[in-house]
Amino acid sequence: MIYIGSDHAGFQMKEKLKNYLTKNSYCFEDVGTHSIERCDYPIIAKSLCEKITNDDIGILICGTGIGMSIAANRFKHIRAGLCTTKKQAEMTRRHNNANVLVLQGRDMCYLKNISILKTFLLTSFEGARHEKRVNMLSEI
Amino acid sequence: MIYIGSDHAGFQMKEKLKNYLTKNSYCFEDVGTHSIERCDYPIIAKSLCEKITNDDIGILICGTGIGMSIAANRFKHIRAGLCTTKKQAEMTRRHNNANVLVLQGRDMCYLKNISILKTFLLTSFEGARHEKRVNMLSEI
Repeated sequence: MIYIGSDHAGFQMKEKLKNYLTKNSYCFEDVGTHSIERCDYPIIAKSLCEKITNDDIGILICGTGIGMSIAANRFKHIRAGLCTTKKQAEMTRRHNNANVLVLQGRDMCYLKNISILKTFLLTSFEGARHEKRVNMLSEI
Repeated sequence: MIYIGSDHAGFQMKEKLKNYLTKNSYCFEDVGTHSIERCDYPIIAKSLCEKITNDDIGILICGTGIGMSIAANRFKHIRAGLCTTKKQAEMTRRHNNANVLVLQGRDMCYLKNISILKTFLLTSFEGARHEKRVNMLSEI
């Protein structure tokens, strides 16, 4: 399952990404927020991260992506990668086995975020020497 | 105090940033790595984060910046912002009161990282409504 969430600054980007997911037949659940009214990104991040198990994927959006990235990475089962390029999306799946994609809601073209999302969804974890490092992330 | 660290993929960028810090009379301590030989970013991130108290600043660098960002944000006293633009550096200081700047070591121009670092060092936290959200980051 894909879970998607944003604060108010990421709300409009979230709605556009949901259209993309629907058109491409991905199943997803929207954990909020549901309007442009101000809300607190740590609460949205927590709601989403608590739903992620096994092979689930999360998508989180705030203004810069940084607030969501800090909040999501507080959870030891989450590896949240803030991606502003396709290359980062590819590498964070291959090397970090990221299970949450964090995107910028502001100062970022919708089409660029779509191409980052596509790359994230279609790239697999490489394992090997990266496995040890990923395991360390649950232990530190 | 400023603490700076990188894995092997960020080593050369770290050395260039250290030159900048020295030339501009910033005091800093290098927590490693000290060569381009492969090492594990979670270990470097942990060493740096355990040194950060009060008004200290950390700088962490790996290939994409994402591995370091995941690892550093495991620590509840750390707010690590992966910045690929000056605008993100400004906003993560103003809104997230970030105390660790994470930079891309690969696919990033040295001069761009310097301008991101300058912005990060010279921008202050805005407080107000952001204070509540920053406090939540220590509690979730």
